[in-house]
Amino acid sequence: MDLISIDSLSDSQIERLLAEGRRWLEYNRSESRGTDKRLQSKLVFNLFYENSTRTAMSFAAAAHRLGASSVFLPVEQSSIKKGETFEDTARTLNAMRPDVVVIRHRENGAPAAMAGIMECAVINAGDGTNEHPTQALLDALTLSTRFGRVEGLKVAICGDIRHSRVARSNAKLLPRLGAEVRLAGPASLMPEGLPALSIDEAIDGADVVMMLRVQRERLEEELGDAPGEYLERYGLTSDRLAKAAPGAVVMHPGPMNRGVEIADDVADDPHRSLIQLQVEAGVAVRMACLDLLSVGYRDAN
Amino acid sequence: MDLISIDSLSDSQIERLLAEGRRWLEYNRSESRGTDKRLQSKLVFNLFYENSTRTAMSFAAAAHRLGASSVFLPVEQSSIKKGETFEDTARTLNAMRPDVVVIRHRENGAPAAMAGIMECAVINAGDGTNEHPTQALLDALTLSTRFGRVEGLKVAICGDIRHSRVARSNAKLLPRLGAEVRLAGPASLMPEGLPALSIDEAIDGADVVMMLRVQRERLEEELGDAPGEYLERYGLTSDRLAKAAPGAVVMHPGPMNRGVEIADDVADDPHRSLIQLQVEAGVAVRMACLDLLSVGYRDAN
Amino acid sequence: MDLISIDSLSDSQIERLLAEGRRWLEYNRSESRGTDKRLQSKLVFNLFYENSTRTAMSFAAAAHRLGASSVFLPVEQSSIKKGETFEDTARTLNAMRPDVVVIRHRENGAPAAMAGIMECAVINAGDGTNEHPTQALLDALTLSTRFGRVEGLKVAICGDIRHSRVARSNAKLLPRLGAEVRLAGPASLMPEGLPALSIDEAIDGADVVMMLRVQRERLEEELGDAPGEYLERYGLTSDRLAKAAPGAVVMHPGPMNRGVEIADDVADDPHRSLIQLQVEAGVAVRMACLDLLSVGYRDAN
Repeated sequence: MDLISIDSLSDSQIERLLAEGRRWLEYNRSESRGTDKRLQSKLVFNLFYENSTRTAMSFAAAAHRLGASSVFLPVEQSSIKKGETFEDTARTLNAMRPDVVVIRHRENGAPAAMAGIMECAVINAGDGTNEHPTQALLDALTLSTRFGRVEGLKVAICGDIRHSRVARSNAKLLPRLGAEVRLAGPASLMPEGLPALSIDEAIDGADVVMMLRVQRERLEEELGDAPGEYLERYGLTSDRLAKAAPGAVVMHPGPMNRGVEIADDVADDPHRSLIQLQVEAGVAVRMACLDLLSVGYRDAN
Repeated sequence: MDLISIDSLSDSQIERLLAEGRRWLEYNRSESRGTDKRLQSKLVFNLFYENSTRTAMSFAAAAHRLGASSVFLPVEQSSIKKGETFEDTARTLNAMRPDVVVIRHRENGAPAAMAGIMECAVINAGDGTNEHPTQALLDALTLSTRFGRVEGLKVAICGDIRHSRVARSNAKLLPRLGAEVRLAGPASLMPEGLPALSIDEAIDGADVVMMLRVQRERLEEELGDAPGEYLERYGLTSDRLAKAAPGAVVMHPGPMNRGVEIADDVADDPHRSLIQLQVEAGVAVRMACLDLLSVGYRDAN
Repeated sequence: MDLISIDSLSDSQIERLLAEGRRWLEYNRSESRGTDKRLQSKLVFNLFYENSTRTAMSFAAAAHRLGASSVFLPVEQSSIKKGETFEDTARTLNAMRPDVVVIRHRENGAPAAMAGIMECAVINAGDGTNEHPTQALLDALTLSTRFGRVEGLKVAICGDIRHSRVARSNAKLLPRLGAEVRLAGPASLMPEGLPALSIDEAIDGADVVMMLRVQRERLEEELGDAPGEYLERYGLTSDRLAKAAPGAVVMHPGPMNRGVEIADDVADDPHRSLIQLQVEAGVAVRMACLDLLSVGYRDAN
């Protein structure tokens, strides 16, 4: 089985990944962390065609926690620069018989194309403006850890919705788990055809406010705004958060632009911010993915 | 024992490396792949002074498959830039007591110089225009896997012979295994003193056609050719391949310039192209090298 | 327990680290090297915000020798470039629950700041002009290996004292072990308030001469000197070394500028140069640090 899009997961697969993720979250907090070497015969190729710290480190940590070997393709210095086609690179890597390939790519559909060639499990670690399914899974795990459920939660996702693979994957996953998702952002950063919802409308009564990172380039290009103005108009301040439901929590996929899409006091609120729990859940859910996809691949496919 | 040049291998060592490579090739295709951790106490330093995807990944995969730990020297950000001599870097690395050093370098002779300093096994992963012995070994393993033998095969190696370490190592190894090697290329890309053989002459009746990558810079500099013209004049097209022996196969060390030295239909011909088998054999033969050189080093030296 | 500064180590901790380092030095020379996997459940994050070959490789080798998994943060391509704060990066990494963080940073105090956030052991692998405690520990281990003691040794540390974290950590550690440390260098490269001691005065009767690397930029900027002149005026030549005690040894943290701060014949003198023993001791002492800090962290803190 590959993990390219939330769409390709069945309900029972989602349930299984979250249940196993929950188990690994507990395990990573325990003294026995790192002693389970169930993937010690497995080889994971990590292909990050686009820079990433947290996702690359998170997958590396997840692999190592289960004893798998991780190899990072040095994309910047790779054959790609020598004019080799993406398909030839995929065929070459496939011939080395890795057990899992994790791929991040700036082009939509690259992980799907890779999966079409590879005979092993392929995990999409984010492709362009398309999807980032392990992020949505970790967000769901974070919510279920905090609230004991995802069902019935009102989740406002705010910011650059149009370009956000995080928003896209969450907008697919969370409703399947029974949550209500509200997407809101500056008009120029909303996808075409989606009803314009203001940030304030989205946050009103929400249980969860998930802020998205805004690219500084887009601030000027599309909004003509200074960072401080963005915070005022579209960012999460404590004033704005006050309109959410009592006990509402704050999420952000990181890296954060403090003072732009999120105010310091909100980001650092120990009772409301789940930002670090998201990171922790990320390692756990990726352990579940690596384990279930690599072991079950041949049976499940 | 080091592996610097095909010349330094005895016939029985070559035979042993190929036999073990064959065994690892089978093993990597089996379910037990990755369970043999015989090198788990070993530390491999990978020094890639020149960019490489496939060779670096291949050595990394080979090491991990046997449980060895691989450390990649970040050459681009290394002391070399701070003016340290190559010899001092070698002495420093030697003092860390690795079990194997794999080195690629743009200068001919660098691996031999490294081997003169290191007390552990050194494997040449390609030096300048000199040698690339594990590539020749993997090519021999590929041929013996396909044909059941190397002896008696007519092998045409075509392209930029003058600058090719792949050609050089194969021209040494394959004849020792009983093959007939024919080297052909544009006149300006042939080594001095070698009889000029046209591509068509070399391919005539050949069992194997191994195409070499041509550097785009050289296309213009030395040939004044556009890519398409190169294919017409010196590349492998299906027309040209038709002149080879019945059942002739196609090889390429990669990365390929499609439409330059090789046409798409030839590269992708499932019956004739051994290009992915070469990659697979590469991991296998490097497992054999790491295993035999690291373990047998002190006895055999 | 973290290892941020020599100041934070108790005498018994120093003694323990050196004793364990001595044991690992022997072990690394033996056939059983690499078979002790006591850290195989541990995950080490290596954050090198400043380029380094020998220190990064040394920590990687040390971790692998004990079975730990090392993950290197690709700082150059990391979120830091996306404007994430250092503290947010630290919180993110902490949420991944590594067992040890090794950090090199060009700013004084960064490792201490990281340790204030991380819940695991943090090891300072060199911060700005502040400290490099594992270098001082390896230097002490080198001396005790050579002389059987550190106590009573006269140690001249010569060069760019003002900017040297190596000098700073050694100037703290070696006196605590009973050595006499003399700091000497060009007047413009001495810290304010330190008595000016000429190189020749420092070396006179010294048992140990530790030369520091001089940055080529500083040669011109502050000294207006050509490299050759520096050697003449402040470098270690065999003439100058002749004024040291009989049996005096030579050390250098590397990478060396041959012909600048140290002459070839001195660097390569097999009887006097401990430069490679320093590297070997470095791996050993870092194994001791990783082992004692990661295992003992929760008890000792």
